[in-house]
Amino acid sequence: MPGRDFLQVPGPTNIPGRVLRAMDRPAVDHRGPEFIALTHRVLPKLREVFRTERGAPVIFMGSGTAGLEAALVNTLSPGDRVLAFGIGHFSHLFARIATRLGCEVELSGLPWGSVIPPDLVYDRLSADREPRYKAVLAIHNETSTGVTCDIPAIREAMDRAGHPALLLVDTISGLGSIDFRFDEWGVDVAVAGSQKGLLLPPGLTILAVSDRALRAGEAARLPRHFFDWAPVIEFNRKGFFPFTPATLLLFGLDEALDLLQEEGLEQVYARHALLGEGVRRAVEAWSLPLVAQERATASDVVTGIRLPEGHDAARVPELSAERYGLSLGVGIGPLQGKAFRIGHLGSLNELEVLAVLGGVEMTLATLGVPVPIGEGVTACQHWFLSRSAPVAG
Amino acid sequence: MPGRDFLQVPGPTNIPGRVLRAMDRPAVDHRGPEFIALTHRVLPKLREVFRTERGAPVIFMGSGTAGLEAALVNTLSPGDRVLAFGIGHFSHLFARIATRLGCEVELSGLPWGSVIPPDLVYDRLSADREPRYKAVLAIHNETSTGVTCDIPAIREAMDRAGHPALLLVDTISGLGSIDFRFDEWGVDVAVAGSQKGLLLPPGLTILAVSDRALRAGEAARLPRHFFDWAPVIEFNRKGFFPFTPATLLLFGLDEALDLLQEEGLEQVYARHALLGEGVRRAVEAWSLPLVAQERATASDVVTGIRLPEGHDAARVPELSAERYGLSLGVGIGPLQGKAFRIGHLGSLNELEVLAVLGGVEMTLATLGVPVPIGEGVTACQHWFLSRSAPVAG
Amino acid sequence: MPGRDFLQVPGPTNIPGRVLRAMDRPAVDHRGPEFIALTHRVLPKLREVFRTERGAPVIFMGSGTAGLEAALVNTLSPGDRVLAFGIGHFSHLFARIATRLGCEVELSGLPWGSVIPPDLVYDRLSADREPRYKAVLAIHNETSTGVTCDIPAIREAMDRAGHPALLLVDTISGLGSIDFRFDEWGVDVAVAGSQKGLLLPPGLTILAVSDRALRAGEAARLPRHFFDWAPVIEFNRKGFFPFTPATLLLFGLDEALDLLQEEGLEQVYARHALLGEGVRRAVEAWSLPLVAQERATASDVVTGIRLPEGHDAARVPELSAERYGLSLGVGIGPLQGKAFRIGHLGSLNELEVLAVLGGVEMTLATLGVPVPIGEGVTACQHWFLSRSAPVAG
Amino acid sequence: MPGRDFLQVPGPTNIPGRVLRAMDRPAVDHRGPEFIALTHRVLPKLREVFRTERGAPVIFMGSGTAGLEAALVNTLSPGDRVLAFGIGHFSHLFARIATRLGCEVELSGLPWGSVIPPDLVYDRLSADREPRYKAVLAIHNETSTGVTCDIPAIREAMDRAGHPALLLVDTISGLGSIDFRFDEWGVDVAVAGSQKGLLLPPGLTILAVSDRALRAGEAARLPRHFFDWAPVIEFNRKGFFPFTPATLLLFGLDEALDLLQEEGLEQVYARHALLGEGVRRAVEAWSLPLVAQERATASDVVTGIRLPEGHDAARVPELSAERYGLSLGVGIGPLQGKAFRIGHLGSLNELEVLAVLGGVEMTLATLGVPVPIGEGVTACQHWFLSRSAPVAG
Repeated sequence: MPGRDFLQVPGPTNIPGRVLRAMDRPAVDHRGPEFIALTHRVLPKLREVFRTERGAPVIFMGSGTAGLEAALVNTLSPGDRVLAFGIGHFSHLFARIATRLGCEVELSGLPWGSVIPPDLVYDRLSADREPRYKAVLAIHNETSTGVTCDIPAIREAMDRAGHPALLLVDTISGLGSIDFRFDEWGVDVAVAGSQKGLLLPPGLTILAVSDRALRAGEAARLPRHFFDWAPVIEFNRKGFFPFTPATLLLFGLDEALDLLQEEGLEQVYARHALLGEGVRRAVEAWSLPLVAQERATASDVVTGIRLPEGHDAARVPELSAERYGLSLGVGIGPLQGKAFRIGHLGSLNELEVLAVLGGVEMTLATLGVPVPIGEGVTACQHWFLSRSAPVAG
Repeated sequence: MPGRDFLQVPGPTNIPGRVLRAMDRPAVDHRGPEFIALTHRVLPKLREVFRTERGAPVIFMGSGTAGLEAALVNTLSPGDRVLAFGIGHFSHLFARIATRLGCEVELSGLPWGSVIPPDLVYDRLSADREPRYKAVLAIHNETSTGVTCDIPAIREAMDRAGHPALLLVDTISGLGSIDFRFDEWGVDVAVAGSQKGLLLPPGLTILAVSDRALRAGEAARLPRHFFDWAPVIEFNRKGFFPFTPATLLLFGLDEALDLLQEEGLEQVYARHALLGEGVRRAVEAWSLPLVAQERATASDVVTGIRLPEGHDAARVPELSAERYGLSLGVGIGPLQGKAFRIGHLGSLNELEVLAVLGGVEMTLATLGVPVPIGEGVTACQHWFLSRSAPVAG
Repeated sequence: MPGRDFLQVPGPTNIPGRVLRAMDRPAVDHRGPEFIALTHRVLPKLREVFRTERGAPVIFMGSGTAGLEAALVNTLSPGDRVLAFGIGHFSHLFARIATRLGCEVELSGLPWGSVIPPDLVYDRLSADREPRYKAVLAIHNETSTGVTCDIPAIREAMDRAGHPALLLVDTISGLGSIDFRFDEWGVDVAVAGSQKGLLLPPGLTILAVSDRALRAGEAARLPRHFFDWAPVIEFNRKGFFPFTPATLLLFGLDEALDLLQEEGLEQVYARHALLGEGVRRAVEAWSLPLVAQERATASDVVTGIRLPEGHDAARVPELSAERYGLSLGVGIGPLQGKAFRIGHLGSLNELEVLAVLGGVEMTLATLGVPVPIGEGVTACQHWFLSRSAPVAG
Repeated sequence: MPGRDFLQVPGPTNIPGRVLRAMDRPAVDHRGPEFIALTHRVLPKLREVFRTERGAPVIFMGSGTAGLEAALVNTLSPGDRVLAFGIGHFSHLFARIATRLGCEVELSGLPWGSVIPPDLVYDRLSADREPRYKAVLAIHNETSTGVTCDIPAIREAMDRAGHPALLLVDTISGLGSIDFRFDEWGVDVAVAGSQKGLLLPPGLTILAVSDRALRAGEAARLPRHFFDWAPVIEFNRKGFFPFTPATLLLFGLDEALDLLQEEGLEQVYARHALLGEGVRRAVEAWSLPLVAQERATASDVVTGIRLPEGHDAARVPELSAERYGLSLGVGIGPLQGKAFRIGHLGSLNELEVLAVLGGVEMTLATLGVPVPIGEGVTACQHWFLSRSAPVAG
């Protein structure tokens, strides 16, 4: 199909040309000076994107799932109790991994589309007098529904309850796109993925680890070898890894972090807020409901959209891909066939969002979903114009 | 600027990833078997895109300008009279090159936005009883205004006048995008460029040459060496070039021609017709006049758009590039400040056109040009939908 | 440093241009048809390179270390006894991972430079009457010393002892370079890495799994989630993965497997045998001892070379990299400072081996190691010539 | 064929990865700010590599042949007399182009393998009392034989004769590899190519033009349009070109010039001197004669080697390419079948030269040419070692 495709699943995201070119290079000796210098360049830049001064960034090969596993095996022991909140596919997944690895998970199932209620966190923790919970599993941005949880409020609830549990946060689809502050928010382990806001192809999962988590790790007895962060941190000091690292992805990461720095993190967040709101304005013009229960919690990186009864939402991504080279996300779990998702994160700009909205409109119209052609795009354009500076003169 | 830019000048066009990757390779020995095989693959594919069985394709390094020069120096002698028609920048350029090289050019200046009138061709040639004109210089697609001339009608006029002049056609922005038929239309020399419908970066100009033109070349006395097509054709027989050829661009050309073949030339033309009409519908929704004098002659690869009095059209490409990463064409010559141009050729699809139209609307609005936000996009969407197949079931 | 570097560590190896270009492409939706087709293309080709018809190929993100972990967690339960043989760094690592994951490892430490003695395997297993050993951990090619173990003889010893233990084989630096036959040799789990004979950058580990191993996996109780092969195999049937897969590396794998097929596996092995012997002839011309205890067991993919007393072998890779852009392997463990290693695997040819040998000679000479300049290269050239066909006529 | 090929024709040369990546990018608007900045970056860097402060660099699309044509059409008029010296294929070509374009060429034919004798230049010019000669055509490095002419001595001869002719120098295979000093040597027009020392693929020819040549150009009446340097220089002032320029090659040129700067021009020359002498030492070890008549004039970028009677030198490049992926240059003109050529310019290092020499030795041996296997490589290694610094400590 001629022209450029639009990859608007909520990750992987479009890989910028500069990042692709940084990886289009010969392999290097991962024990030689060029690679050592690379490691020493990348780690401080990762600290900046996590917004941490003391937290240790740890890079593993693997998907976000692998990163969640790494967060657990490095901090917990068999039989440890953890508190989890299911608000969608990925928050449930986090709980399931903990269960499979041998933890005892207390899972609060909540409606898909809701966010983790800080008060519920407070209630659970303040009721845990012993205390038995070793960790709270929280999700920053729930990709399956398109909501963003209030991590600082969760932290505040934990503090208010005076509970010592570690706060483990899945920010796989959040980091590098929406505001995340490891130190300020008191996160203990944050888990990110390469293929979202970090602008890389899939293949890496990246953690930030607090001192408390590191200390917890010394006592944690879940079996681990490849995902053991201690040797990674130790080898990293000299620029090495305890295993053969994914060298080319690391060269790409180096470049991707430069891109984020050059744009400026605050501007990155502002851009995602601009684009996310543009999408929501379009959805409203279409009179379709968001999956997010409350507009204020809707995510700036992915929008879940419900279709009216009688329409199979799974046809939307199928047809948009086939006709327009536009990849959208399907509804997962209870949303299967009921909703579809537009990813709007990573290296993305206003005109691309207009194209995507135009393509969604034409797809919906073709499928017989009653949407007013052009009104979503128009609403988004008005929003963009309302936020753009007037011209000089 | 994050996200992908929109390069909507009327050439260079977007280079497809497959073409870029075909060129991202080591240099080769241009006398070795890999290169020889490449030459033997590329030339027949060029014939197909020119739609010629007998015409000889000739590849030179250079811009389209160089190709026009090559067409002239290989067919004409100092003092030869040629007939030319000025309907815009590039048709005037063709005449100017002939003049500079020592030909005597009879130029009919016509309004910018008009096409070459076949009747005028007939009148001029039928009045030339001697006959003295050695060649007619015609332009297929005038990029500076956005009109497409009727080459077969020009040929028919020449035949009707019974005039033996060669027909030299500038199809730099036409070939590979809009219908062009070298054999059927009786063209003697056609000149194309790499950076338009042929999907490559700038760097090559490609000619097709008829037997008549080849014979004329034997007697032509304009001095030439690098642009002499005779040794190119001769060396090409064995897969070589008489000079060090632009090997990597030729690998790219091989891939680009495959892309055109895979889509199918008729489908390529149909796609450009679809996209071009979409743009015109948007312009009409904006109530802005085309530069093309008649809608029926408006080009499917580039649209020239006039702004109302009091607006500086040069600001449009400036602001669209600065704000939205959208490169548009400026008005040239008498259209400077009065018009701007949208290129819509090459590897381009429907969603990209929507993005471009959305960006133009926002740019115009920001500059205070009264356009109804969203209505151009919407009109284009309706057009696209009107031409798309219903879904099964 | 101008010119091309020589990456002659025993992995990562040189990534062929075609593989790099296959990865230099936009991300795709890992749930879309293009990716599904990719999965369905790659898995059968992996079967061919493992030489298995029934074994299931399983691809994980991770280093070879991760693959060894995956082999263990999918087949064993806490407290299971496994038999291991330490003949170098990587065979010891395999045992150490098993220990860390909670297995009871009986490790036979043998001299570095030796191979796993099939008779010792037989003795251990035939003495295990209960039987208690669940698995034998074997290494195909011990990269730290440069020896290749006789896996079919080990299998034969296991069969002779009538022992039901699984045979888990580390062929990380063997697969795709030297003869490996999963079915014929009765291997239960084979572990490979992307960055050796599979011609990719680091980032993937690839397993082949026998039916017996799959069945063992159903009962295995070592905790696992990311490295659980059951969902991978299940999802793969439809072309998916249970996690976001490393899409670009998989596109690269597809191309790399084509390269191996085009050359032909037997020719790949023959080429490595040719190059390996060439290196050994050079080492003999230098009168330096191999690390391999017996010449017949020396590896065709990496050669470990001891330096005379009084010379710090760690200086060799340092200086060769600094002066000649030639990356060599250091001595590891007890060989630190005593030996260095030349990797000669992957996409490599005769002239490159001559360059490497020439560079090693100049490096050794500069460091004062008494080697006859040029004689290693010359010996290798004579070997190559002795194996090359005469010219016709 | 696995492994990396060795492209040792005397151009095109190996394109460094950084240069390839600089060109692996989307097309840009050649009238936009990114391209303007590129032009303004490249031109001053070109001045440095030509070693000129006042000379104007001019970039055309085309091969070196095109550059020679540009040098002539911009400085000469029909019937102008020029003095030329034929010492090989490319010096004869320069003269032939001048003839074809309408100049009256006085060509001194000299033996292939000789250099242009400055005394002969002096004799011819001092005998030209009128003076009638408008230009002296000189070649810096004659690629067909492998000799380097003494341009400053030729300049000195012209000055001694007090002759006003312009000095037009073909340094296509010299610039960026061997010492060239436009200002200091009083060159009027220098012609270079992209695919030699400038590390790019073929496609550009680059000139440096003195003030005298620019003034001569104003009166020159050879017909020209595309190769007219006046509009290029004028448009370049604002960062534009008077035609659509080869944008991607210019991005590559920008990077290639950085590579030269980073290495340092003096070091670039020293490296070529080192490598060239290494090749000559090998040839001497083989007891084969150079094509260069005098060793002191042998080129540091290409070595022409004669074979003994009874051996067909054309077989050498054929067999080396077929067996070893090693591209060598054939003998041209009177050297056809009698000599072959090794290119050793551009991005090249010591180990690559050893590989090439080893490959040539094996090829010659296979063809039955009596050469002592390994002795050429060994001689080259001794030379390299004699020039390398001892290690510290």
